[in-house]
Amino acid sequence: MAPGNIGIVGAGLVGLGWAIVFARAGHAVRLYDNAPGAAAEARRTIALRLDDLRQAGLIDEAPATILARVSVADSLAEALEDALYVQESVLERVDVKNSVMREIDALVGPATWIGSSSSGLPASLYTEGLGCRDRCLVAHPVNPPYLAPIVELVPAPWTSPATLDSVRTLMQAVGQAPVTMSQEAPGFILNRLQAVLLMEAWRLVEAGLASVADVDLTVSQGLGLRWAFMGPFETIDLNAPGGIADYARRLGGLYRDIAAETTEQRGWDNELIARIEAQRREVLPEAELVARSAWRDRRLMALALHKRRMDSADAAGTDPAATPGTQ
Amino acid sequence: MAPGNIGIVGAGLVGLGWAIVFARAGHAVRLYDNAPGAAAEARRTIALRLDDLRQAGLIDEAPATILARVSVADSLAEALEDALYVQESVLERVDVKNSVMREIDALVGPATWIGSSSSGLPASLYTEGLGCRDRCLVAHPVNPPYLAPIVELVPAPWTSPATLDSVRTLMQAVGQAPVTMSQEAPGFILNRLQAVLLMEAWRLVEAGLASVADVDLTVSQGLGLRWAFMGPFETIDLNAPGGIADYARRLGGLYRDIAAETTEQRGWDNELIARIEAQRREVLPEAELVARSAWRDRRLMALALHKRRMDSADAAGTDPAATPGTQ
Repeated sequence: MAPGNIGIVGAGLVGLGWAIVFARAGHAVRLYDNAPGAAAEARRTIALRLDDLRQAGLIDEAPATILARVSVADSLAEALEDALYVQESVLERVDVKNSVMREIDALVGPATWIGSSSSGLPASLYTEGLGCRDRCLVAHPVNPPYLAPIVELVPAPWTSPATLDSVRTLMQAVGQAPVTMSQEAPGFILNRLQAVLLMEAWRLVEAGLASVADVDLTVSQGLGLRWAFMGPFETIDLNAPGGIADYARRLGGLYRDIAAETTEQRGWDNELIARIEAQRREVLPEAELVARSAWRDRRLMALALHKRRMDSADAAGTDPAATPGTQ
Repeated sequence: MAPGNIGIVGAGLVGLGWAIVFARAGHAVRLYDNAPGAAAEARRTIALRLDDLRQAGLIDEAPATILARVSVADSLAEALEDALYVQESVLERVDVKNSVMREIDALVGPATWIGSSSSGLPASLYTEGLGCRDRCLVAHPVNPPYLAPIVELVPAPWTSPATLDSVRTLMQAVGQAPVTMSQEAPGFILNRLQAVLLMEAWRLVEAGLASVADVDLTVSQGLGLRWAFMGPFETIDLNAPGGIADYARRLGGLYRDIAAETTEQRGWDNELIARIEAQRREVLPEAELVARSAWRDRRLMALALHKRRMDSADAAGTDPAATPGTQ
């Protein structure tokens, strides 16, 4: 897909993350935010993030070259002009999204697709009455999208198949990993999977069966290792001699019994929240949250670089694991 | 903990994986299997695995030095003699474990702890009548334990606190990451978390909401990235300005609603298994399962090395992400 104009509406953390994704891929990005100065501030943050990415070895071009593709739009109209694609990244509230989408509808050209970064609100809640509604869908990223490639594409009932196909192609072209839902469902794919695992994690602690720290270790030193480069289906497909059907026949009953047993949950009331929080604060004092978040970002960058090198070696048919020091 | 004798009972894939863990840490390992020749065959496989680990940069000693610590025991008595710890890794069937544990009970000294590699059967089902029962517990690894450090320690009602403490200390000393359950529960921690996520993954495909390939991408390119180095609690603790309590108040209701909606599951019947399998076989033909498993093992080794280097850099206070080419 040839480089084009990309409009980013809403220049918070999500919007500036998207700006990096599109500018990194060669597109001209126009950042707009209705709060005065917010887009210019976001562009300064983008400059810092590009320096981090360059230092980590995650971008090949000079940060200034990529930054030069990001401009601040003084009006919504300027951000949308001749746009190939618009990424709406405003506050996660139906009334706010509704109002912004109506403004976009009045200004946008007939060939522009519009994706919403909504992490939970389906597009049907704020695009129904729009003239451009067949070109609207949810394109939900994980933060930050320039390190976590996944993007969930969720069509409203009136989203055209051509829109879904085109946005999917665009996302692949800019290096993201688009996945598609056939229709809207609460939590989309990612948060549905996260929801069930989190509910069970909380339940284990609530029942006194395990500590917060031990549940975290079980994932970070066990379950999460394969899941960082294979999904859950591929994991079980490789865990029985006859593949996934063999695995399902051996373990399906056990998993169903366990899952059925995990439905007695009282929800996260204040008392339980306080207990879980107390355990987390023993592991990490509140004063260290910011520093730990910076650590997480460094680890995510290093993991992204590691995965990129491994994927390149896979594609080239070489085995970097045989060459210590290069992966 | 000073090097001692470790008895491995059952020399299948799990037993030989444990042998590598203990021998790598300096212990003298005695491998026993009641099938003639099985332990000697396992020792030859261990030699191959040690070469792989050396090539991947995951062991510092010469493979032959580590292999020299692994001997084949010709009898169960020989494997158990003066053992600090016994890791039982026989077939996952109550009658088989029961029979082996009775034999162990008759031979084992009074200072030996006994851990079972059982992935699902709680120790109470096969240790109740034993004289050594207060020194028995489940020590469940993820395969292969020399790459995935997690080990779940699950006490039977009669397991002594001293046993739990001692085995925990031993596991930490050999480089594993032990987690402890307060009491037995089906699936322990790891498979409970895996069960709920898998059930929802299957449900998404069953309902036609997403494909097998897209569910896998959602984890491998999104959810699984943080989980490879942080657990689910730490992930959400860093995903809201005020930490985990702030996050729980914002999103607890949504997750509970999603989780409540995921309970209508018909189980994995043959028709559904066939549908899921057909999708997986489009992604990976059956003939490629073995090659893909070898790929998974290379990726697990590379990820283990990556994490080790990042952890060392964290401990040293340096930032390897700032030094391209070293992580």
